Amino acid sequence: MTLDMRILDTQNAGFETELDNLLAWEAVSDNQVQHTVLDILHHVKTQGDAAVIEYTNKFDRLTAKAMTELEIGQEQLQAALDGLPDDQRVALQEAAARVRRYHEKQKQDSWKYTEDDGTMLGQQVRPMDRVGIYVPGGKAAYPSSVLMNALPAHVAGVDEIIMVVPTPDGEVNQLVLAAAAVAGVTRCFTIGGAQAVAALAYGTETIPKVDKIVGPGNIFVATAKRFVFGEVGIDMIAGPSEILVVCDGKTDPDWIAMDLFSQAEHDEDAQSILLSWDQDYIDAVKASIEKLLPTMERADIIRASLSERGALIKVKDQADAVKIANRIAPEHLELSVEDPEAMAQEIRHAGAIFMGRYTAEALGDYCAGPNHVLPTSGTARFSSPLGVYDFQKRSSLIMCSADGASELGKVASVLARGEYLTAHARSAEYRIKD
Amino acid sequence: MTLDMRILDTQNAGFETELDNLLAWEAVSDNQVQHTVLDILHHVKTQGDAAVIEYTNKFDRLTAKAMTELEIGQEQLQAALDGLPDDQRVALQEAAARVRRYHEKQKQDSWKYTEDDGTMLGQQVRPMDRVGIYVPGGKAAYPSSVLMNALPAHVAGVDEIIMVVPTPDGEVNQLVLAAAAVAGVTRCFTIGGAQAVAALAYGTETIPKVDKIVGPGNIFVATAKRFVFGEVGIDMIAGPSEILVVCDGKTDPDWIAMDLFSQAEHDEDAQSILLSWDQDYIDAVKASIEKLLPTMERADIIRASLSERGALIKVKDQADAVKIANRIAPEHLELSVEDPEAMAQEIRHAGAIFMGRYTAEALGDYCAGPNHVLPTSGTARFSSPLGVYDFQKRSSLIMCSADGASELGKVASVLARGEYLTAHARSAEYRIKD
Repeated sequence: MTLDMRILDTQNAGFETELDNLLAWEAVSDNQVQHTVLDILHHVKTQGDAAVIEYTNKFDRLTAKAMTELEIGQEQLQAALDGLPDDQRVALQEAAARVRRYHEKQKQDSWKYTEDDGTMLGQQVRPMDRVGIYVPGGKAAYPSSVLMNALPAHVAGVDEIIMVVPTPDGEVNQLVLAAAAVAGVTRCFTIGGAQAVAALAYGTETIPKVDKIVGPGNIFVATAKRFVFGEVGIDMIAGPSEILVVCDGKTDPDWIAMDLFSQAEHDEDAQSILLSWDQDYIDAVKASIEKLLPTMERADIIRASLSERGALIKVKDQADAVKIANRIAPEHLELSVEDPEAMAQEIRHAGAIFMGRYTAEALGDYCAGPNHVLPTSGTARFSSPLGVYDFQKRSSLIMCSADGASELGKVASVLARGEYLTAHARSAEYRIKD
Repeated sequence: MTLDMRILDTQNAGFETELDNLLAWEAVSDNQVQHTVLDILHHVKTQGDAAVIEYTNKFDRLTAKAMTELEIGQEQLQAALDGLPDDQRVALQEAAARVRRYHEKQKQDSWKYTEDDGTMLGQQVRPMDRVGIYVPGGKAAYPSSVLMNALPAHVAGVDEIIMVVPTPDGEVNQLVLAAAAVAGVTRCFTIGGAQAVAALAYGTETIPKVDKIVGPGNIFVATAKRFVFGEVGIDMIAGPSEILVVCDGKTDPDWIAMDLFSQAEHDEDAQSILLSWDQDYIDAVKASIEKLLPTMERADIIRASLSERGALIKVKDQADAVKIANRIAPEHLELSVEDPEAMAQEIRHAGAIFMGRYTAEALGDYCAGPNHVLPTSGTARFSSPLGVYDFQKRSSLIMCSADGASELGKVASVLARGEYLTAHARSAEYRIKD
């Protein structure tokens, strides 16, 4: 079965339209899904544990009678870690240590300054009290995602990290539990879907209400998160994963083919794109793809992803590549070029930038240190990797001296009266000295 | 007409329930509103300018024939500023200078570090390219809000700031236009409602597509922002404004009464609450409220707000006040006490903290420096004042040395195989040295 991959050229007429079509992605959340999710939210909000148990038994084919059966204790998490083969346990701990070290640098501190008249201004930074981590179950249960979601919250100083992970048919993923132990998860419930999001957002008799819910999930989970936004904070709504590789033609084409595969193997909707100004190199990567594809365990998924959503794009030169990269604002951007530092300077929009021939995107997924939860579908134009800053929040600090309040009061009074807000004006005027 | 204000005591049985009822607030966006907004979004997305003009003529009772009639040029903004009375122009510029100075401190810089094996990790911070500022029209058109929304974007380094402000019946607010000139707005369109949000989110022939939309609006605007989230970034969805004043009984009760009024005068849904451990003082503030209320221009709105949503709450002591403040997570928290710095340390959740007897909340609304766009309805548990950080975003940087990639590749390989992602594993393994 041959692979029919898009080959584009930025210099061809119609390229802009082809690119728009290539990138087009609409997260579908139809009316039926919305109504189902609204029902689930309502039932969990009003009936608490009973509704959570009922939905969990129904959707995950379980027979739980009480919430206690749907909680996994600390000793079980620890036992899962202790029970891992040595290489896995060491790799998990090594990855966690590196992720923790990188995220420590993201911690933001309170600051303040005092003006000449004694007025103090500043910002006080505090962690959230309690957050919820959604971890998908089944085949998409990734222990690395547990680390990437829980560790930033831990580093931020969040007191309680509540993890939910569905166990369809009772199947528990030991690596996921082990990761929860390594990442310092406080409590863990084996629930999922919109019912888990509802339980975290509203709280039940057993499950504590959280301040923010993060983590990826299917369309029901994403829709539920969108609906509870405002009641609690949420992270971004993730689309399919994508990689954009820029190569100057001097990296082993097998390496680049495998980098493209590593994105494509996630699922059929994942997107892998290569940009190069070297036509011979594009041909070489195409040959590597065709050579290596039959050797891949997930060949069918990779083939579907590359055929439907992949592309090899010939650009004019490095500047043209930068332009296209900024236009795409990719989740993962691999700069497999001679001087990646100079090129990275030109990049305005990307979730993560993997620089140089040695930096495979896969290293960032697991253990380099930076977070693997990244903005997808061009949302890097306005959003950032998940980080410690997502679990901290700020309060403005204002302490006026008597002199400061008097001077500021005059300005505030004029502006408040311009807005016809006279209580504002009079409140300020009380503090003006005679 | 007497004022019937809630008087509560934390030591009474049933206080928790009373507090829950007091704080209960549900932003209503009914089915009808949602369908209307979805229609508007769809028409603007597919028909561009024509749809924007049609909706604007209909909802704002205008007769525009082309988008050019709905754009206000730079020279008009500047003319509005030049035409202001001196005191207003100076006050606006003074406020802008202070807001800008404070927000400069929020700018975040890129950072990186190099590990022993030569691997470089970091985070690159960049401003967004283009953002949209929604400014309400009519009676809620606040020039101060133009400053508070546009200046942080300007400080962040955003290239283009597109402002939209409806002009119902063609009524233009000169102070708002003047504020746009002061704040460095790039382009200004006299459109509003869901059609303005749609135009900014999708772009039209005339109105450029933005990366993020910020600013307050009515229920149609809030609903539209919620729907376009993901296509563009949005700021928080604001509820009614609120203030929580904590007083030790030693501030002039007239001052505190006026501070409570300054919140209540916004609208009937606004919320003003006083906490004190001094019963006599609570009585004194109540007397001041009754004495001053008849002298207020917006007495009817203030009376409705204080009756429906206000409260004077007797707490046991300062520690009890801190506990209630953290439970409420107020938008504005005024600490009118002897040692506000010690007390502020104990506050975990608040949008802005106004410290000391001189620091009227109104000073913060206009000119102290910090932003007046703050998290409402308890969302200070998980969100922050609008700031420069809302207009910057980050890209992770990873550049592995050959040695670093080899060591990290071993860890990544083990974890990737544990997740059955063999393309990830092989991509990492290519970089392992023999």
